[in-house]
Amino acid sequence: MWSYTPPLRDMQFVIEDVLQAPAAWAAIPALAELDADTARAVLAEAGRFASEVLAPINSAADLQGCRWRDGVVTTPAGYREAYAAYVQGGWPALSCRPDDGGQGLPVLLDAALNEMIAAANHGWTMYPGLLHGAYECLRAHGSDALKQRYLGKLASGEWLATMNLTEPQAGSDLGLLRTKAEPRADGSYAIIGSKVFISGGEQDLTPNIVHLVLARLPEAPPGTKGISLFLAPKFLPDDMGRARNAIRCTGIEKKMGIKGSATCAMSFDGATGWLIGQPHRGLAAMFVMMNAARLHVALQGLGHLEIAQQNAHAYARERIQGRGKAIAEHPAMRRTLWTLRALAEGERVIAYWAAMLLDESHHHPDAARRAQASDFVGLLTPVAKAFFTDNGHRGADDALQVWGGYGFVHDYGIEQAVRDSRIALIYEGTNEIQAIDLLQRKVLDDGGAKLGGLLARLEADADRVGAASAEFADALRAQTAAARAATAALVAGAQADPEWPLRVADDYLRGIGFTLLAWAWLKRAAAAQPLAGDAWAGDTLRAARFGVQWLLPEAAFRWQRVAAQRAALPSA
Amino acid sequence: MWSYTPPLRDMQFVIEDVLQAPAAWAAIPALAELDADTARAVLAEAGRFASEVLAPINSAADLQGCRWRDGVVTTPAGYREAYAAYVQGGWPALSCRPDDGGQGLPVLLDAALNEMIAAANHGWTMYPGLLHGAYECLRAHGSDALKQRYLGKLASGEWLATMNLTEPQAGSDLGLLRTKAEPRADGSYAIIGSKVFISGGEQDLTPNIVHLVLARLPEAPPGTKGISLFLAPKFLPDDMGRARNAIRCTGIEKKMGIKGSATCAMSFDGATGWLIGQPHRGLAAMFVMMNAARLHVALQGLGHLEIAQQNAHAYARERIQGRGKAIAEHPAMRRTLWTLRALAEGERVIAYWAAMLLDESHHHPDAARRAQASDFVGLLTPVAKAFFTDNGHRGADDALQVWGGYGFVHDYGIEQAVRDSRIALIYEGTNEIQAIDLLQRKVLDDGGAKLGGLLARLEADADRVGAASAEFADALRAQTAAARAATAALVAGAQADPEWPLRVADDYLRGIGFTLLAWAWLKRAAAAQPLAGDAWAGDTLRAARFGVQWLLPEAAFRWQRVAAQRAALPSA
Repeated sequence: MWSYTPPLRDMQFVIEDVLQAPAAWAAIPALAELDADTARAVLAEAGRFASEVLAPINSAADLQGCRWRDGVVTTPAGYREAYAAYVQGGWPALSCRPDDGGQGLPVLLDAALNEMIAAANHGWTMYPGLLHGAYECLRAHGSDALKQRYLGKLASGEWLATMNLTEPQAGSDLGLLRTKAEPRADGSYAIIGSKVFISGGEQDLTPNIVHLVLARLPEAPPGTKGISLFLAPKFLPDDMGRARNAIRCTGIEKKMGIKGSATCAMSFDGATGWLIGQPHRGLAAMFVMMNAARLHVALQGLGHLEIAQQNAHAYARERIQGRGKAIAEHPAMRRTLWTLRALAEGERVIAYWAAMLLDESHHHPDAARRAQASDFVGLLTPVAKAFFTDNGHRGADDALQVWGGYGFVHDYGIEQAVRDSRIALIYEGTNEIQAIDLLQRKVLDDGGAKLGGLLARLEADADRVGAASAEFADALRAQTAAARAATAALVAGAQADPEWPLRVADDYLRGIGFTLLAWAWLKRAAAAQPLAGDAWAGDTLRAARFGVQWLLPEAAFRWQRVAAQRAALPSA
Repeated sequence: MWSYTPPLRDMQFVIEDVLQAPAAWAAIPALAELDADTARAVLAEAGRFASEVLAPINSAADLQGCRWRDGVVTTPAGYREAYAAYVQGGWPALSCRPDDGGQGLPVLLDAALNEMIAAANHGWTMYPGLLHGAYECLRAHGSDALKQRYLGKLASGEWLATMNLTEPQAGSDLGLLRTKAEPRADGSYAIIGSKVFISGGEQDLTPNIVHLVLARLPEAPPGTKGISLFLAPKFLPDDMGRARNAIRCTGIEKKMGIKGSATCAMSFDGATGWLIGQPHRGLAAMFVMMNAARLHVALQGLGHLEIAQQNAHAYARERIQGRGKAIAEHPAMRRTLWTLRALAEGERVIAYWAAMLLDESHHHPDAARRAQASDFVGLLTPVAKAFFTDNGHRGADDALQVWGGYGFVHDYGIEQAVRDSRIALIYEGTNEIQAIDLLQRKVLDDGGAKLGGLLARLEADADRVGAASAEFADALRAQTAAARAATAALVAGAQADPEWPLRVADDYLRGIGFTLLAWAWLKRAAAAQPLAGDAWAGDTLRAARFGVQWLLPEAAFRWQRVAAQRAALPSA
């Protein structure tokens, strides 16, 4: 009864009509060969994989979970076969470079793929989740020898990758890391330490696992400036005898959700590893993975919202309660259903735009365009990560209410979505950290200049649309004006009261999130109007209008809290 | 590491200083023998039971769950022993009448007891959860023969009770019930039908189970006016041979939370039952249980908030992250922690006041006082049920963030609190139904007259406090003014646009919730000021001030949405 229908109609609308990505590809030599038809075909195939291979094994995997025994992890039924099909389909290689064996397609299509697989089966999606980031990191910072050995295997997905950051005493605070790396005569390092929360640290999907590990060299400076990055494979290369490296999975966590994903405690007992990039510059090397990884997490939030809204709609139309009416007719339910749809559709525009900007930042021939795209991505990423995962989890939780008592029962699917979606508010930097990253590092550090540029870009779209979209343009202008005012106040006041931004960063991020939604709804409305007569286009226009009328008022509350909270917050 | 400390200090503060309950008891003959010291002793003992007996078995019970086999249910380890101790301690009888073997203590103390046991172990608390309601229902409507047989057993808790409403096709819509009751020659009835979501429909805690069952007599009118209430025990009385009645548990649900509670599908296969009250008046008889049951659910929301805030505080003080600081010092965490505390402390005042009013409505010698208390309880109950359970679940979910990645792991306790607390938004009438009950039935049906009386009562307290509480009094007056304005607009506009209240009922309920919190924080501040110098009193005053400054702004957003949403909501 819980199922996933790939939102191909909306993806096409966003990519072609709203963002006009095909025209953008044509202007970028690396992507110029791609056309809209090919992109549609790729997404249709990805949608089939998500809905026909991944979605059907999601519920049973939650009940079954992973098994750990003597260091060996067994994933749930169907996970191995699904992963083999994923590699077979070439999905890991989608946006890898052709010279590494990849398909050279835009990050935008990879984003749509990731939205769909996360929606269909978040637990399974964790395994390939870091593959692309590891590929990019190794590509940017690895030695030729490491690239030679590992890059092709990662691009193809033949081997999976992990990211070993967290240690028991060091959660969000990487400066506290204690894992050591001792140089050996042959140029390799012996890695000694314990890591926790390592997704896919051990699994039975691939014959080898490529661990990226943060550790300290001898006499490294303390804190985050003394951390280096290493590559340590589960099995050592052939010329070293294919020996099992000294890396053990010492247990897996019993978690609230994503139970199909093995969350491993790892022990590195003098494991052989090789340095990636410069000594003590490991965080910088690993941060190459970060923007992409955070965008993936944002897409998980969007995916959860999408699958929750699809299934809630379907259930609400079937279930009769109260004077022979379908639940979908009751005002409180209509409100929930339209909220979910308006958010999901608005977020899709923002997420895909961020992915397009990533493509532009990598490939655009004009350096100024690359730099501006990169600045915008830097601003959009923390907003999308925190705002979308928050909305994805709260949205699924609100949707559960549509099922009434059945919502609390596993068989109906939505309660698993609520549990699975919860992790996305935590990992890849908690949402609180995203808010501080946005306000402190990305906005206040340059006095709001880059944010001003982003807002100007949104406003330019408001000026471009016709009179038919005037209500949307007005709503957007009200949002950007509020965002500018709040930002100016914070820029002016933060010196006298340096804690102020930290107190209100979460409200500020949500305010910016709604500003972006106001822009997304405007863009959607403007693109939908020429399609008048198409029932789907009519509904998406109604969703956008609902968003403006019912959801934007929260932004005013957020901005008001930002402004008012110069009052000190009591200490702990 | 997850533990429960009964909030006895605050309970005493609320009961004695804020609400001055001992003076109220003195004015009510049925309660006049109770004094503050006895009440304190009762609560301390209840707190020991919750923290020492129930809390330690909560986490393992969640992992173990209930087992069903061939109609027999086995509850988790420790549940039987805990229930035996509960009966032994006389807790079921706390507020039952002395002539039924009860202790005749106020509902107020029963409310505090229920807050504590729900906080410590929500799953276990489900078993005795309906006991008191069944007792009241039978007491009010049962025949002498039924009372003779069952009332004492329910008062003592020797036998547990269930409430059999829901059927697969009839969730919130009881008019769709199909279970039949056919009269037999001996005055009993044969009950035939299926029920779902029956908490404790089968269990191994008590030797007999008293099922209250809604069913239709032959030729009953359709809809809710043709439903009668029956009592059908698991084992028939001795004079009928102690035979097993024809009632089977056909399965239990796999749920998101409260896994220690057996949620049963029940089959009545010609089970012997007896009519309670008048034919076709079953809903009225069962609604006797409703106000009390909904207040219990509200207390579960409060309990979850309380235990989440306790444990989040403790963890945040211990865990060091970011330049040697405890998490509790970071502004984003301080904000979360103060939010939880301000809400929990404010809600405790409202919940206990509702319980006091219930006592007054039952026992006060002055009929006008009884009637007004009853009106106020009618208004407070849906608000407390929906607002507190919403805050309890969202609050636990926000608190989870304090643990970071550990929050997602079962061992730390908070993820279970998030899952357990979710059901309270659904059962005993979904929160959407509470909102409609409040706005449509309790407010608009008399043109806002009773609500006006309640607001006047709150405002009188604002006038009574001294200058030291002026900021709180102003905040409360702003809230009551907004509530009055929104109510007047709805009264005036609902006739022309009858769907308007249904569209905004949820926002309206939250607006009233914040109005009550503003009053609670005022009362707390006024009562805390004379205790200056006491560190606890200083913190509770800070929490109240935080609530006014940081949390009340949401109310303005809610009222704004109520006013603005005369715009039609799109259809499904």
